[in-house]
Amino acid sequence: MSYDNRCIAVFDSGIGGLTVVRELMNRLPHEDIIYFGDTARVPYGIKSSETVTRFARETCDFLLQFNPKIIVVACNTASAAALPTLQETLPVPCIGVVEPGAREAVLQGRGGTIAVIATEATINSDAYRRAMKRFDENARVVQKPCPLFVPIAEEGRSSSDAITMAVARDYLEPLVRLDPNVLVMGCTHYPLLRSAIGQVVGDGVKLIDSGEQTARTVIAELTQRSALNDTKCEGKLTCYVSDNPQRFRELGQRFLNKTIVDVTWISPEQFFAVSQANSA
Amino acid sequence: MSYDNRCIAVFDSGIGGLTVVRELMNRLPHEDIIYFGDTARVPYGIKSSETVTRFARETCDFLLQFNPKIIVVACNTASAAALPTLQETLPVPCIGVVEPGAREAVLQGRGGTIAVIATEATINSDAYRRAMKRFDENARVVQKPCPLFVPIAEEGRSSSDAITMAVARDYLEPLVRLDPNVLVMGCTHYPLLRSAIGQVVGDGVKLIDSGEQTARTVIAELTQRSALNDTKCEGKLTCYVSDNPQRFRELGQRFLNKTIVDVTWISPEQFFAVSQANSA
Repeated sequence: MSYDNRCIAVFDSGIGGLTVVRELMNRLPHEDIIYFGDTARVPYGIKSSETVTRFARETCDFLLQFNPKIIVVACNTASAAALPTLQETLPVPCIGVVEPGAREAVLQGRGGTIAVIATEATINSDAYRRAMKRFDENARVVQKPCPLFVPIAEEGRSSSDAITMAVARDYLEPLVRLDPNVLVMGCTHYPLLRSAIGQVVGDGVKLIDSGEQTARTVIAELTQRSALNDTKCEGKLTCYVSDNPQRFRELGQRFLNKTIVDVTWISPEQFFAVSQANSA
Repeated sequence: MSYDNRCIAVFDSGIGGLTVVRELMNRLPHEDIIYFGDTARVPYGIKSSETVTRFARETCDFLLQFNPKIIVVACNTASAAALPTLQETLPVPCIGVVEPGAREAVLQGRGGTIAVIATEATINSDAYRRAMKRFDENARVVQKPCPLFVPIAEEGRSSSDAITMAVARDYLEPLVRLDPNVLVMGCTHYPLLRSAIGQVVGDGVKLIDSGEQTARTVIAELTQRSALNDTKCEGKLTCYVSDNPQRFRELGQRFLNKTIVDVTWISPEQFFAVSQANSA
């Protein structure tokens, strides 16, 4: 067995990807993690596939300076739009959140209807349906964009808030009438509203957290490559953002479920200088 | 009397500024208008003042190529963060939406309490309160960020939608208890929800649309400079966006209240090429 003590790099358009980091930290407590949140250009969920792909490539160029052993695209929109491009061009393995969530949904769905909720851009990309069809060509998939869930989670409204519940019912009741077996939370913000979503869809519908499934996939990938960390020290989380480190620190704690100590603002000059040097 | 047939340039982080364009077109039907929506980086309302100022300067550099006679910052967040910088550095007059809305609120408020609703960034900047204090140092101002109103308007929910009304009550009922005379809609998206807002605050509270006041200020400025257009032809609206022209065209019609014909996507290369040439 060999080891690899390089870091795991994770990125998202903003803070949502911290729910994936939370799952990674719970399962791999000794790994160092570098996180980048593109908070100057957040959200990606209402932007075109071309623009999101460009943002994702620029971010990966930035992250490569940290010599990561793997890059995790902890953003459904970026995974849906850019993953094939990133996997073709990056010198390290790159894992997105769509494929792990889609695979688990097909497994748990057992041939029944699969519901997917996500941002406008992720739904428009049809990435979940396409991934599910690769695992099971007969998969029946129904999809619904839920654009208010992101700002509701960022505003700090909990699952017990009346607005959260009203919006959840408005989005999800039409889906429930289609009688799905499973519901994929295809946006890294949505696990914060898990309880509200669960209340509306009921116990008969299994909730799949794409971020959680992604953490499992990362572990499998690193194990297969004998690339887990062999230190016994607590892993370190270092965060970089393109804007507003203070807001990231405050909001991020709810997503990570612990205090965020180390957040550094990266200016456009720093961001693009590295990106240009890497792509030169 | 002299005339000036150059265009009026208007910009916003996205589509909200079209409510200001609508007011301009209603009042100045012969003027040509160039609009830029920074849809690749929208929204500005959750970003830092430094980042918003940089975005606004880059956009003005882009707009200067059209040789405008005036630039209208049809975005409350950008007006709050960047207007003094823009006014100092631009070679043409530059008008924001905060000052006109603040002035009208002080006039209509007649010494009573003034309520302001806007994005997180606009409220944090305290720009409305500061502007109101310049007009009346005793002005009593209460402010409230309403972050869900923008995605609700963009999702196409009307004022009669149950979610819209629930959110409006949630945000505005605590403000109503402070007994304001006037309420400033300090975000260019909010006029789309005017009816819901009006229902919650009641007839006793005057609603001020900062965009509408800005259109009046633009007319006054152009009249004073003898810079109105003297053609009798219908003015032309030309729109540029940094992402997703199709989404802009579809959503924008509700904001403009008419069909948008001419929308061109500007690539980052085009955007920054002009910006660098101008600032060189």
